[in-house]
Amino acid sequence: MRLIDEAEAERLYGLMGPGHEISGGSAANTIAGIAALGVPAGFIGKVRDDQLGAVFAHDIRAAGVEYATDAAADGASTARCLILVTPDGQRTMNTFLGASQGLNPSDLDAAQIARAEVIYLEGYLWDPPAAKEAFMAAIQIAHRQANKVALTLSDSFCVARYRDEFLELVPNHIDILFANEAEIKALTGTDDFDAAVAWARDACDIVAITRSEKGRSSSRATKRTSFWPSRACMWSTPPAPATCSPPASSPGWPRACRLRRAGAWASSARRRSSAIWVPAPRPT
Amino acid sequence: MRLIDEAEAERLYGLMGPGHEISGGSAANTIAGIAALGVPAGFIGKVRDDQLGAVFAHDIRAAGVEYATDAAADGASTARCLILVTPDGQRTMNTFLGASQGLNPSDLDAAQIARAEVIYLEGYLWDPPAAKEAFMAAIQIAHRQANKVALTLSDSFCVARYRDEFLELVPNHIDILFANEAEIKALTGTDDFDAAVAWARDACDIVAITRSEKGRSSSRATKRTSFWPSRACMWSTPPAPATCSPPASSPGWPRACRLRRAGAWASSARRRSSAIWVPAPRPT
Repeated sequence: MRLIDEAEAERLYGLMGPGHEISGGSAANTIAGIAALGVPAGFIGKVRDDQLGAVFAHDIRAAGVEYATDAAADGASTARCLILVTPDGQRTMNTFLGASQGLNPSDLDAAQIARAEVIYLEGYLWDPPAAKEAFMAAIQIAHRQANKVALTLSDSFCVARYRDEFLELVPNHIDILFANEAEIKALTGTDDFDAAVAWARDACDIVAITRSEKGRSSSRATKRTSFWPSRACMWSTPPAPATCSPPASSPGWPRACRLRRAGAWASSARRRSSAIWVPAPRPT
Repeated sequence: MRLIDEAEAERLYGLMGPGHEISGGSAANTIAGIAALGVPAGFIGKVRDDQLGAVFAHDIRAAGVEYATDAAADGASTARCLILVTPDGQRTMNTFLGASQGLNPSDLDAAQIARAEVIYLEGYLWDPPAAKEAFMAAIQIAHRQANKVALTLSDSFCVARYRDEFLELVPNHIDILFANEAEIKALTGTDDFDAAVAWARDACDIVAITRSEKGRSSSRATKRTSFWPSRACMWSTPPAPATCSPPASSPGWPRACRLRRAGAWASSARRRSSAIWVPAPRPT
């Protein structure tokens, strides 16, 4: 993933072939996936009051997600990621963070956050000071309700930029940690994967680490690196908020199961969804 | 196809699930297809100066099509078609014509039109008087150069609205006519398909009629209704205009062949592209 500014986004777009515009974003995709499984879910994130912002707001609400953050009336346009796929199937993601960086504490609906059994934070938003402030305010609201706080480390460059702050944040405020191998190594400053995982297990209640092709390629890897066996549930279903209309049933969703089974299910679902959605490479 | 106004487009969009935004439109898709085959091509059509208009302009240029029509600075927003796909694979297309109806004679580049061996007109644009005026001006430029004028009848409702005008237009100004069975019957005012085709053959040099599942289901149907045997070429390659960068080679394109072979090739290509691009129905 490469972060770009608006000028570079325009330059690169001018060089790209015809595209498909699809709403997305790391955290938004996660929440849309959770909503698709029938779990009531909300999203807090900033777009501009432009057409692509309206498309994003439509799509995430149409996915059954409660979304009420006001669109910015000025400043950078709605964030976008220009994704290039080479014939070997590899993606290059060029991300202009745009209006999403304008998130600030006034965008939080304390009652909405208090209703959530789990809040899920996207590490990328640690960059802008006001968004970081919003994160800390949301964490306080969640913990006052004895609810869980989940964080994804987002990418290893993000971790490298804020390593000291994340080393304070994770053990003290995060209950559920998502990372890949590079990110957890970057955070702990070690190349020893087992040591990095041991640190994370001490720091958080639940740690979910993905390892691409190594992740679930052997039962040992499954047990040690994918989802840790536990009697806790990954997510359970809180009472539906009044404004949210999730699907009435969700036959595919393991509502209450051990983490190892949830991990296996998630890996399988991810593989299947990747197989469906990776765009076909364009002929050169 | 159902024509809708902007209010209905907004209402319907609010009820739809998450979408994919893809540039398109009947004539634009045709021209993008021709450009993909390596034939230099240009497009004249109107968008608003909004984000979706910019996306359309990017996509059609990135497809190798020369596109220089100024975006409208006011008035209706860029046209869109809200396409719903039911689980049986049937599409419902709801089209808001928007800014595209603002096309007028001042949008024509006479030199660009004069360069084109064939100009292709979209019947839908017979609705707005200024666009109709632009059509007639373009036809005059083409015929002054002894170039060909092609028309697609677009849909049977469009034909019904302007039947008398089309009955004057087609035999006097159109060299190549595209229609489906319902459209050619609506134009000629008969339910006798053979009589309708006989009229069209008298009226135009080349007639291409599609009949869905009947179109190429038997050799007799192929010979009579798909593309008429002739020694003429469907399209040939004019010198590339300076601003157009088509692919250097196009192995799939029958550059010069009899019409019957071109018709068979087009039917086959259409079947394959439909199989690829029909969106998967959403679960209900």
